[in-house]
Amino acid sequence: MNDKVLVVLSGGQDSTTCLYWAMDRFGAENVSSITFDYGQRHRIEPACAAEIADFTGIPNVVLPIDTFAALGGDALTVADIAVQSAVNEETGLPNTFVPGRNLIFLTFAAAYAYQRKITHLVTGVAQTDYSGYPDCRAETMDTLQSAIRLGMESDIQIHTPLMFHSKKETVQLAQELGALPAMGLTHTCYNGERPPCGRCPACELRAKGFLEAGLVDPLTL
Amino acid sequence: MNDKVLVVLSGGQDSTTCLYWAMDRFGAENVSSITFDYGQRHRIEPACAAEIADFTGIPNVVLPIDTFAALGGDALTVADIAVQSAVNEETGLPNTFVPGRNLIFLTFAAAYAYQRKITHLVTGVAQTDYSGYPDCRAETMDTLQSAIRLGMESDIQIHTPLMFHSKKETVQLAQELGALPAMGLTHTCYNGERPPCGRCPACELRAKGFLEAGLVDPLTL
Repeated sequence: MNDKVLVVLSGGQDSTTCLYWAMDRFGAENVSSITFDYGQRHRIEPACAAEIADFTGIPNVVLPIDTFAALGGDALTVADIAVQSAVNEETGLPNTFVPGRNLIFLTFAAAYAYQRKITHLVTGVAQTDYSGYPDCRAETMDTLQSAIRLGMESDIQIHTPLMFHSKKETVQLAQELGALPAMGLTHTCYNGERPPCGRCPACELRAKGFLEAGLVDPLTL
Repeated sequence: MNDKVLVVLSGGQDSTTCLYWAMDRFGAENVSSITFDYGQRHRIEPACAAEIADFTGIPNVVLPIDTFAALGGDALTVADIAVQSAVNEETGLPNTFVPGRNLIFLTFAAAYAYQRKITHLVTGVAQTDYSGYPDCRAETMDTLQSAIRLGMESDIQIHTPLMFHSKKETVQLAQELGALPAMGLTHTCYNGERPPCGRCPACELRAKGFLEAGLVDPLTL
């Protein structure tokens, strides 16, 4: 297969596994990656994406999105944005979390891909283990793909290799694909700590996946 | 009807007509407007939106989107972005034009609306007279509405009152709604001139609409 493919790379465990999935399926020479810098509270995330791209030798482009931070507040001042960057203790999500964020990421990724005649997108969204995120569901992704195809007159295909995987299965897939060494470069912790805090929901979910797969997370070594 | 409605206001003729349509249908007190500042070549566009909002007394929020300018080039440097802001002479569009731009606008508008419990969006897109823009078609808007509803678990409704209107019919609608005085504040010209150049495709289309409706464009007075 000589088709070109673009992987949405956040710097986390799932998107890194997707990067290896794309390299395996499309051939590394056909893979590139895109990372969105949208004012993440933890600056370590886009930094991890760059390290992973470097480690794998896959080209990586960073696209800025300043809109989410602006959406977070009622006014568009810097002071407001700073306040809105605080983490909501109930959800563990930044207050700047916006419903439908993946719709935006994939539409921008599709626009980037369209301009470069790339016809495949890969995203690490999964509806397993992610009950609170309706924009991660298969039905959402299918419908978004239809909207993008119509809106851009393209035949773009959105691949979601982890959609129905548990965290255990994602870890197993990463091992099969030879992606485990790169896992030491990824970032998951909601508290932005490295080594990870081990206590936040994201750390717990990740630890559970490795435990159930009977493998050691290189990030914890 | 006490539902709240958000109008995507570009500062042009069509979105201004939509603003009056929303005021008529939902009551002015339920209407607000959103304008995207995405690095438009002609800074007059967001300025017009602000003037129109002021003239009508409708609240207006400006959301920045820096991503389109970044998408325009292969690298994300200021110098590259400047080059890419040039107008393509064939299409009359800036080189930073991105396929599917309306998908992004409406998804951000929906996210903003969601946070404020606004359940109706209005956009001036029309598939009549706009053959080159697949993201303006009714089928695209319908599918995007489905994707947003799924992705945000909302019941947002996207209204497109001009979808099947010719420019003549849009001018007639503007007159019926009492929107003609505000037309003197709108901006249409691709060359960013005011008074309008009268020669670019956008000016010609606008002039044709007013001519066929038998009305005088206040912008030309």
